[in-house]
Amino acid sequence: MQMGEGVEWGLHCCVTLGWLKDEGPVSIRRLAAWFDLPQEYLKKRLQALTRAGILASTPGARGGFSLAKPPEHITMMDVVTALEGPAEAFRCVEIRQRGAGAEGGQFRRPCGISTAMRRAELAWRRELAGQTIADLMAGAAPSGERTRRNYARLRG
Amino acid sequence: MQMGEGVEWGLHCCVTLGWLKDEGPVSIRRLAAWFDLPQEYLKKRLQALTRAGILASTPGARGGFSLAKPPEHITMMDVVTALEGPAEAFRCVEIRQRGAGAEGGQFRRPCGISTAMRRAELAWRRELAGQTIADLMAGAAPSGERTRRNYARLRG
Repeated sequence: MQMGEGVEWGLHCCVTLGWLKDEGPVSIRRLAAWFDLPQEYLKKRLQALTRAGILASTPGARGGFSLAKPPEHITMMDVVTALEGPAEAFRCVEIRQRGAGAEGGQFRRPCGISTAMRRAELAWRRELAGQTIADLMAGAAPSGERTRRNYARLRG
Repeated sequence: MQMGEGVEWGLHCCVTLGWLKDEGPVSIRRLAAWFDLPQEYLKKRLQALTRAGILASTPGARGGFSLAKPPEHITMMDVVTALEGPAEAFRCVEIRQRGAGAEGGQFRRPCGISTAMRRAELAWRRELAGQTIADLMAGAAPSGERTRRNYARLRG
């Protein structure tokens, strides 16, 4: 079970755009160069974040991406859901109700396996929903300083 | 991010083999019919559980699969790891250290994104490690009764 690589890309871009909020939109070309990522693939991920209302996309020669709302209102869970979809990792297809084993079955209660899987997934979601882009920015202040410094040099 | 369907299969087979422990090994043919699953695909999953020491495989005409240890010593996490591998769902490739953004970087501390992802994954693992096959059996006692009844009819 693997998350797509786009999750790491999207989270780092959100944190970076948070640090560069006074610079206006950052072009996809610059964001791709920032992390040495393939521009077209990165663009697809940032467009998904835009559709989810996490990023704003400004068209035009001076356009690019910026955070659509304050970083304390964007959780890691929001970013993961926008990029990986809302589906739970465990899909229960109720095999207990099929085949020779199910004969004479009633199955009034939800499957214990499915319930336990959901509980584990909720614990995971709770952790990610409790961590915002602002928290990540605050936890890496030296990187924020370097980001602003390097970006100023890039523009200068 | 999706778990393979084999996880549901594997967990239900473990619970069913727990209920049928007095019956000796259960053939792959019967287990597949039990849940109306494709025999060859199911066999691959049960072989993975056997390699992980969760199931025991007995060869021969009266052979089949059984639990390799008491159900209270097999956790849901054990089964998921045997079937999905031990890798974490989030793979950090340290893109923060690449490209124009990393210039002048030191990165002495672990990445906050990676740390938060790991914390969430640990919460998920903790839940699954706290739930055993014996717990699942105990939580579905009527299904255990039906399983034994249907199996006796199948053999009779």
